[in-house]
Amino acid sequence: MNKDNRIVIIGGIACGPKAAARARRCDPHARITIIEQDGGVSTATCGFPYYVSGVITSNDSLQVRGPDYFKSVLDIDLLLHTRAHKIDCNAHIVEAIDLKTDKKTGIEYDKLVIATGSVPVVPDIEGKNLQGIFTLNKIEDAEMIKSYIARNKIAKTVVIGAGFIGLEMAEAFSTLGTNVTIIEALDRVMPEFFDFEMSAILEKHLHDKGINVHCGHRVTAFQGNGDGMVSTVITDKTTVDAQLVLLATGTRPNIQLARDAKLKIGSCGGIAVNEYLQTSDPDIYAGGDCVQNLHRITGKQVLVPLGSTANKHGRIIGTNVTGGTDAFPGVLGTGIAKVFDFNAGRVGLTEVQARQSGYTDINCLTGGMEHAGYYPGWRDFVVKLVVDSKSNRVLGGQLIGAGDVAKRVDVLVTAITFGATIEDMAELDLAYAPPYNGAFDPLHHAANTIRNKQDNLARGIPPAEVKAKLDNNDDFILLDVRSPLEWRAFHIEAPQSQLIPLDKLREKMNDLPLEKEIVIICHTGVRAYIAQRILDGADFKNVRFMDGSLISWPYQIK
Amino acid sequence: MNKDNRIVIIGGIACGPKAAARARRCDPHARITIIEQDGGVSTATCGFPYYVSGVITSNDSLQVRGPDYFKSVLDIDLLLHTRAHKIDCNAHIVEAIDLKTDKKTGIEYDKLVIATGSVPVVPDIEGKNLQGIFTLNKIEDAEMIKSYIARNKIAKTVVIGAGFIGLEMAEAFSTLGTNVTIIEALDRVMPEFFDFEMSAILEKHLHDKGINVHCGHRVTAFQGNGDGMVSTVITDKTTVDAQLVLLATGTRPNIQLARDAKLKIGSCGGIAVNEYLQTSDPDIYAGGDCVQNLHRITGKQVLVPLGSTANKHGRIIGTNVTGGTDAFPGVLGTGIAKVFDFNAGRVGLTEVQARQSGYTDINCLTGGMEHAGYYPGWRDFVVKLVVDSKSNRVLGGQLIGAGDVAKRVDVLVTAITFGATIEDMAELDLAYAPPYNGAFDPLHHAANTIRNKQDNLARGIPPAEVKAKLDNNDDFILLDVRSPLEWRAFHIEAPQSQLIPLDKLREKMNDLPLEKEIVIICHTGVRAYIAQRILDGADFKNVRFMDGSLISWPYQIK
Repeated sequence: MNKDNRIVIIGGIACGPKAAARARRCDPHARITIIEQDGGVSTATCGFPYYVSGVITSNDSLQVRGPDYFKSVLDIDLLLHTRAHKIDCNAHIVEAIDLKTDKKTGIEYDKLVIATGSVPVVPDIEGKNLQGIFTLNKIEDAEMIKSYIARNKIAKTVVIGAGFIGLEMAEAFSTLGTNVTIIEALDRVMPEFFDFEMSAILEKHLHDKGINVHCGHRVTAFQGNGDGMVSTVITDKTTVDAQLVLLATGTRPNIQLARDAKLKIGSCGGIAVNEYLQTSDPDIYAGGDCVQNLHRITGKQVLVPLGSTANKHGRIIGTNVTGGTDAFPGVLGTGIAKVFDFNAGRVGLTEVQARQSGYTDINCLTGGMEHAGYYPGWRDFVVKLVVDSKSNRVLGGQLIGAGDVAKRVDVLVTAITFGATIEDMAELDLAYAPPYNGAFDPLHHAANTIRNKQDNLARGIPPAEVKAKLDNNDDFILLDVRSPLEWRAFHIEAPQSQLIPLDKLREKMNDLPLEKEIVIICHTGVRAYIAQRILDGADFKNVRFMDGSLISWPYQIK
Repeated sequence: MNKDNRIVIIGGIACGPKAAARARRCDPHARITIIEQDGGVSTATCGFPYYVSGVITSNDSLQVRGPDYFKSVLDIDLLLHTRAHKIDCNAHIVEAIDLKTDKKTGIEYDKLVIATGSVPVVPDIEGKNLQGIFTLNKIEDAEMIKSYIARNKIAKTVVIGAGFIGLEMAEAFSTLGTNVTIIEALDRVMPEFFDFEMSAILEKHLHDKGINVHCGHRVTAFQGNGDGMVSTVITDKTTVDAQLVLLATGTRPNIQLARDAKLKIGSCGGIAVNEYLQTSDPDIYAGGDCVQNLHRITGKQVLVPLGSTANKHGRIIGTNVTGGTDAFPGVLGTGIAKVFDFNAGRVGLTEVQARQSGYTDINCLTGGMEHAGYYPGWRDFVVKLVVDSKSNRVLGGQLIGAGDVAKRVDVLVTAITFGATIEDMAELDLAYAPPYNGAFDPLHHAANTIRNKQDNLARGIPPAEVKAKLDNNDDFILLDVRSPLEWRAFHIEAPQSQLIPLDKLREKMNDLPLEKEIVIICHTGVRAYIAQRILDGADFKNVRFMDGSLISWPYQIK
């Protein structure tokens, strides 16, 4: 406890206030100051899409702690509307300017915390300064969007960028009654988070919800009406009317201050910190969106700006600036988003990322129900697990659907943290009662599916390959083993399609040719796998089941 | 693939059918026979309470697979209404009797699977054979209970035994409009699953839902009316009217066949099996409720009969009777139940169990919200974590409340499986977005609370000790630091109670005596801990906060 420990924190959104509050609890006597350029502090940035949509009704609730709290409860000096513009590392002084009075001050520190967050990446597109084009980084942005919608008749909105924020905002704009188009430069939605087939499932859901999705489009210009308000978005392939445009094209770490102070910047463009979140100057710590993190699987540095990480950083920094030695072990690339009626979550490496990182992977695509099928009200989802085929370690998972995805993502996070193999996953003693789960969790099933593939019991073919075979008019049998009732509800209409319900397969399999390629499908893949094993046992030579079957089929079914 | 591999399975509920189906997928040519004494197979036993209550409307859905499925799809011989009454290990023959024709047969096996499940423990109480007294072990029991309720006017029911099934059935009987009394011989509800203070929270919820709970009562007799129907339950302390009684006093492994065959029975009374689920006869496997399991924390043998474990056993046995070598690593004592509006889950060791197992534990009691507080619709719960104070390993967790308990139980299951420490728990990169979680998960918060206790930053006192101090009229200050609004809604009325809202504490703390014992409370403990640190910093000598605060207070508040 040191009255002479002067802790100065630059940034008041997430990491900064958390560091300040933790430092206060660790040291009741330190002198703690937060410098924040805006008028608010401790802001729930992740709530902005829901504030815009009206799900969150008051911006008060987005201020997790009000400014008064910091003084009255925590005895922390909060300098709002104040911008830190220079760090003098040798003199241990932060130079700051009061943005309302233009008054400059020098603030001495013993320990400095840089928590300057991120800034939106705004692509340099013609017309980008037209009215009605927004980014969403601060509460003021959310207020401006709400106000613009209230003042103008917005029939059509365009969201540029199909990452988490883009999709959340697409839902918000749709909820507000506008016609929404998403434009994404890469070939699919959430390209950094999901493999192709999972993105495709999400894209189909967006279509089902009336959202127009243009992937692989580059925006080349915005055009305005006579009043200087945006009216059209022009891409390299089309033009889209829009009275409001959101640029959700990502963020980059806000490192200007750190760079000017000659602190080490990392390979990903974030401030480089050690495990104690110290920068290259041992008296200066940094955390939150402005730093880069260790990826716990690959051991590489990554940028994964998240409020959860920022808060963890804040607690660790608060401990360490008051004499502690707490360490941050890194991130796993966890992410989750609500996308209309679907929950979309992921952790670790996608199949593409695993291969880029040098792994030889084996993966599965399976369906799952969130709880026991005989207990009413279940919803389902699709699971993709990616496993290192050498060590059997789980490298990543992706889950999308209406069911409880969040639970399984967090189980995967925990399993991957400890280097779980698929054998470990398959035997986890997860909680079972009908309202909460089946006797096997969908993750058990996914792990066992991969084990079956490794043991050459199960042989899968991805939906995209089946689609290509159909488009190519390949000569094969697409054997649907669902019930006649399910078949009548919908099925893949193709000359190759044929129905033999699973319970008739043994008696009718003599009608099938032994040598011809057969791809078996059902709803989730379970029955199709059983059918594959039946045909295997009857000496059929070329039988596979479609991974994930119809629940994972992202293409239109007539 | 061996046409001469004759696999005989005794028991058709969970482990047996799973073993059969898995064996068929591993070996298309084995000859597989299931012997089941009742008329159904592959029954979802865990769904019975919901079938009785009417949540599950049809018993068809409780037959996960119908008898036809085993023949037509799996090519398995299913001998229903057939009882295996003797195993001749040397001759490799099971002697069975057709219960409808009394015809005896000998069935030869190469590999035998014993999956005979469990039988209810029926205490030898006077009057136990009166009409209207039931156990719930088979689908026929559920049907008889439903039928009895339909045929008779049931105003009052008594459930004897406050374990998972007892509480689920109490809810079912209450849903059906009867007045329910639970009688438990031990001192609290769910005594094997929860520590005292967690059971107390659950018991309070049962009271709130109109259930009468008598713990510490031993039932001494049942009395009937003139028609031989139960009318009264007599305990050592009271009498309770009841027109229907459920004996939910636990089960024991059904080991008669195994014992008669001289197979080794374990110390807990279950069939002893090795990691491959082989009995002392290498050609005989056993799984499900009839075996005992290794506890993955203590390394001791335990009885934890669960459908999830039975299904895992079944898959492993199906693999191993067809030439595989799959191993079962054991159980963690996971359990979960819906109890009216609360979810109650647990894993690992309770505080009491940890001490019995030789650990010196440190624990916490904290409140948690299921998702971000600024996103509407959250529900909360109480978390108790039990940690080995020497290694910092998490030994167990208990969670009760209206919020999403199941997710956190499964995260704990996974973490404990891999020997996670509280430091590991605190840094798990769990999925965060407002609809799914806060930036810190309640488990992060619980882990950090224990770390704060270890670092002597946080000093807690359990609710039961505070209650004892109040009952004893101890001279101390019970300092409530919530808002005046929260205080007016309810507070602990006692001469020791005093309100100073957290944001007024710094200005008003001079009114508090430095030397006197102060116990601080708030809603979940977060503010109380902050207040404790404020008073610590001002040289107060004897300040603690109440663990879990009011959300964990199981006593009546006027």
